[in-house]
Amino acid sequence: MLLQLALDTIGMKDAKHLLHEVSDVIDIVEIGTPFIIKDGVSAVRKIKKTFPSLKILADLKIADGGEYESKLAFEAGADIVTVLGFSDDATIKSAVLKARQYGKAVMVDMIGIGDVKTRASELEKLRVDYICVHTASDVKSTKAPPLKELQAVKKVIKKTKIAIAGGIDADSIGNILKENPEIIIVGSWITKNTGRREAALFIKKMMNFR
Amino acid sequence: MLLQLALDTIGMKDAKHLLHEVSDVIDIVEIGTPFIIKDGVSAVRKIKKTFPSLKILADLKIADGGEYESKLAFEAGADIVTVLGFSDDATIKSAVLKARQYGKAVMVDMIGIGDVKTRASELEKLRVDYICVHTASDVKSTKAPPLKELQAVKKVIKKTKIAIAGGIDADSIGNILKENPEIIIVGSWITKNTGRREAALFIKKMMNFR
Repeated sequence: MLLQLALDTIGMKDAKHLLHEVSDVIDIVEIGTPFIIKDGVSAVRKIKKTFPSLKILADLKIADGGEYESKLAFEAGADIVTVLGFSDDATIKSAVLKARQYGKAVMVDMIGIGDVKTRASELEKLRVDYICVHTASDVKSTKAPPLKELQAVKKVIKKTKIAIAGGIDADSIGNILKENPEIIIVGSWITKNTGRREAALFIKKMMNFR
Repeated sequence: MLLQLALDTIGMKDAKHLLHEVSDVIDIVEIGTPFIIKDGVSAVRKIKKTFPSLKILADLKIADGGEYESKLAFEAGADIVTVLGFSDDATIKSAVLKARQYGKAVMVDMIGIGDVKTRASELEKLRVDYICVHTASDVKSTKAPPLKELQAVKKVIKKTKIAIAGGIDADSIGNILKENPEIIIVGSWITKNTGRREAALFIKKMMNFR
């Protein structure tokens, strides 16, 4: 089980400062969508240069142009790129193909997908590496992590690895750990915590304790 | 009727060079998704600084974080920001709210939406400024512009303006003009044309001839 730290509403200076605090605790650092919008893939390049041993996920949320856009991320040093589960199979396929060429991986973000079971089955056939169940941060009525979606996806996939994101904190992680996902994504609960290293260590210890 | 030029797989140097050629012909310049991925919203800032009278659309294709992400675009100088039609109403609403605060606009990209009529009706209630019917560039079987979708959306909306994008060129523009959309988006047919100013002028003349 891997801990992915999502960096969303953060600048480069604070991102590097935070990573110096927690890079030995986390497994993957996510350059979040807003961070990419702010700085472009140079954010990926700079973090990779400063922390070469850290796996990087570039949260592009690709909706079209799967080949060209995933290439931009991989060329900048990303190990994983995200594509929206909603996007056309042609887009998923082209991103997966590009990932194979670079020896990298594709994570499909299931944000907003109603029938996650059907889409997860299709995605497994398209040979994506990870399926990420994800509660949108804008959807205030469902701020809780998507535990039911995680359980539903688990039932239909055999090889594909599962990630989970959306409001994960010290309270909600217990139930998630029981489902044993491959990647647990934590963002603001660590990045906005007064003790960021302690928060990351707490989550990691919970994970290792399982 | 306005002509929007989409800059996707282009670098800043060539983008400026091209805009010096065509800025008096086009009405809106689109900083495309791959261009944002490459350079971040600084691409918007730089183009706005060099061409202050040109309207800029930032093609963020927002899927979540509607408030924060649209703000990044508006702060950088964008006049219009795109949100995916697929995204949750909460995301659309927050982007529209932010646009009102800045006196700017939201365009919803209908890429991948099956039932465009139903979604367009909902989007009009959410007071988005533009609805853009859009053929994904990855979907090779439907490389043609989404003319049927344009006609379908027109039937259900009253106030919202319509834009159309996806493979528009000298051959396909005739049928589109008959439907009188507010914005016609042309990308590679101009950017990859051997005579880019002539290509832009051709499209603009066709539009003015209507």
